[in-house]
Amino acid sequence: MDQQLHRYVDGDRVRVDITRTAEFGALPDEEGHGRTVLTGTEADGLAREYFVERLEERGLEVRVDAVGNVTGRWVPDGADPTARAVATGSHLDSVVSGGIFDGVLGVYAGLESVRAMQDAGLSPDRPVEVVAFTEEEGGRFSDGVLGSSVAIGARDVDDALAAADGDGVTLEEALARIGFRGDGRLNAAAWDSWLELHVEQGTRLEEAPASAGVVTHITGTIRCHVDIVGEANHAGTTSMGSRTDALAAASELVLDLESTTNEIVRRRSETAVGTVGQFEVEPGSINVIPGAVRLGIDVRDVEYATMERIVSGIQSCLDRLEDQRNVETSFSRPYDIEPIAMSDRCVAALHDAAAGVGIDAIDLHSGAGHDTMHIAKATDAGLVFAPSEGGYSHSAAEWTDWEDCAAATRLLAVALHDLATE
Amino acid sequence: MDQQLHRYVDGDRVRVDITRTAEFGALPDEEGHGRTVLTGTEADGLAREYFVERLEERGLEVRVDAVGNVTGRWVPDGADPTARAVATGSHLDSVVSGGIFDGVLGVYAGLESVRAMQDAGLSPDRPVEVVAFTEEEGGRFSDGVLGSSVAIGARDVDDALAAADGDGVTLEEALARIGFRGDGRLNAAAWDSWLELHVEQGTRLEEAPASAGVVTHITGTIRCHVDIVGEANHAGTTSMGSRTDALAAASELVLDLESTTNEIVRRRSETAVGTVGQFEVEPGSINVIPGAVRLGIDVRDVEYATMERIVSGIQSCLDRLEDQRNVETSFSRPYDIEPIAMSDRCVAALHDAAAGVGIDAIDLHSGAGHDTMHIAKATDAGLVFAPSEGGYSHSAAEWTDWEDCAAATRLLAVALHDLATE
Repeated sequence: MDQQLHRYVDGDRVRVDITRTAEFGALPDEEGHGRTVLTGTEADGLAREYFVERLEERGLEVRVDAVGNVTGRWVPDGADPTARAVATGSHLDSVVSGGIFDGVLGVYAGLESVRAMQDAGLSPDRPVEVVAFTEEEGGRFSDGVLGSSVAIGARDVDDALAAADGDGVTLEEALARIGFRGDGRLNAAAWDSWLELHVEQGTRLEEAPASAGVVTHITGTIRCHVDIVGEANHAGTTSMGSRTDALAAASELVLDLESTTNEIVRRRSETAVGTVGQFEVEPGSINVIPGAVRLGIDVRDVEYATMERIVSGIQSCLDRLEDQRNVETSFSRPYDIEPIAMSDRCVAALHDAAAGVGIDAIDLHSGAGHDTMHIAKATDAGLVFAPSEGGYSHSAAEWTDWEDCAAATRLLAVALHDLATE
Repeated sequence: MDQQLHRYVDGDRVRVDITRTAEFGALPDEEGHGRTVLTGTEADGLAREYFVERLEERGLEVRVDAVGNVTGRWVPDGADPTARAVATGSHLDSVVSGGIFDGVLGVYAGLESVRAMQDAGLSPDRPVEVVAFTEEEGGRFSDGVLGSSVAIGARDVDDALAAADGDGVTLEEALARIGFRGDGRLNAAAWDSWLELHVEQGTRLEEAPASAGVVTHITGTIRCHVDIVGEANHAGTTSMGSRTDALAAASELVLDLESTTNEIVRRRSETAVGTVGQFEVEPGSINVIPGAVRLGIDVRDVEYATMERIVSGIQSCLDRLEDQRNVETSFSRPYDIEPIAMSDRCVAALHDAAAGVGIDAIDLHSGAGHDTMHIAKATDAGLVFAPSEGGYSHSAAEWTDWEDCAAATRLLAVALHDLATE
């Protein structure tokens, strides 16, 4: 590795880029450091324009593909422009009332890595590309990781462009409005390798403590939609014995999922998680027994077998509820992604870089998918985490110390340079 | 009792009045026989105008008080106009997607009782008043029984008129728009007695079976608002052991309330009910651990002591959740109405009438409040139920056989005549 590169990484430039980006879609100050940047909104357009300006400022060639993925390509003077590029990046969109680091750190740490290589006068052998993927969070047009799913060919361009939000506006229309409906398709399979820096969104680094986390596996995710239907009826005139209360049945399912998952964590896989995040009760009047509950359940682990075991537990519980509580239930699993391991080459590059720049890094798994989950199917991929204070994310309480941002950027820069150098 | 009066009760007239009223705010036919008539809407205005026309058609003197309570007063030729009136009636408003009998049956059975006395040439000693109370259901401006609460002086006229809906429209403005912002205050304390006919909204008459139910007690109602606050966090990156899941905690409360109430039903009071009807989960995203749940709980019984016991159980459960699950909770009980017994005189009049016209009537309690709950504090009051098919109410599935409507109207007419006759 280059012994000087990390000295050229300027944490202040990363801080400025993150705080300027945080102004687009910013929440009121009293809520913390929060922002709402949904794909194709004005805030998204401003965040993208700021990114393009930063790329052009450093001479990177900017391309925008059909679904709005933005790539800045740097071909060092001594590099072979036909060589497969080393790529890095993340996303600029956020969840509703999300944090300012989630995604943005990875995009600007990637750009800062290029700036540092340029400032250090380095000329790696491969082109380096910095990417901002469209709709990673899935707050408007999808379940998320949309841009990277197109970049690996898992989702068709036209299909993605036709995705519509709740008001019937399509992704294509929304991107056109902000001037980011480009051409062609970013192709991740053409890359030599890929690294993403992201905030941890958990507390394992803080607890270790460690300054960076090298991801070995990204968990799979199974999402289930469950409907439990009982009988809505008058809360005052329906005796306890003649009720079919959908909320009581759904409450049993919530607690059953929790205890099943806790049992699996104790006995088989401590990384397993199961969450009921969506829970909508109908009709929702104080004087009416709930007639229906719609649940959205998210199950993750680094082993697919334990995920399946948790999902089986949900289905067994539903059978029991039908028998014992006389409710009707329905079950579907529309979203099903297997766990994936990071490439040994990328993991090694990240560990070497950490050792080289004197950062204490630990191995861990990623419970969140990230665009890297997709990219890892198309090319060698690595993922590295910076610490999240208190583990908060997807909220205005999300925070990563600026020095931790700078340290992780130094690590990323050195690892990228190594991968780009024969 | 008059041996002929019940023969003059015309079930077809009641049917016509109910089905005509059902046209205002009607739901699409495919949903059943449903209507949405919120106070002060166009549908409410039309229902009230139809009622006023029917009152005037039979020479009743129509008064509309400041909060829109409509009264039709019949002073029989031989009656003392200064004598305390016997009053009857119910309400014309509905819940959202409510049924066509709830309230409307009582209003038109009351009017039909007067029409039958007129047609039979009877002249009871007291004036008879037929009333439609404003906002019984509480779908727009209140928690319900608003008009009757003003009629007993429990709620101030100006306070009631200032009540606003979700859009900031006041009751006064809404009533003025439909031409039913009248003057003065209907005074229930001036009545000799009051009878209300209502659909049962339960299955006890169907199960008995019986054609009518004479209410002995109206249950009290305690409503509690509970907030359970945990920590919203990423569903993928937050390990099972480091969660404070507000939904899991709230699910325990739902099941605890259910088992506590079932236990009380088994051991102490079979009429007790406890319901979590409102249950709102924040933020409600499939990939976010719920950070907060707001619950609305409704507790009823004919004994206040058992209601208090159920509420104590809720509070104990919240204490346990704070200790064991580390959530924060808050509790309030903004709505607290004690059970009330019906007057012996009115209960006897209803039973005598049932026996006289050959209707099999049973005693039961009312789990719903109804306007009678208020009126019983101001004067002697009685409440009689007609059967609800399948117990359905507050829905388009609500149904009462037309012959059951007619039979209950015959019972009401005879009981009113008896009360109005010295």
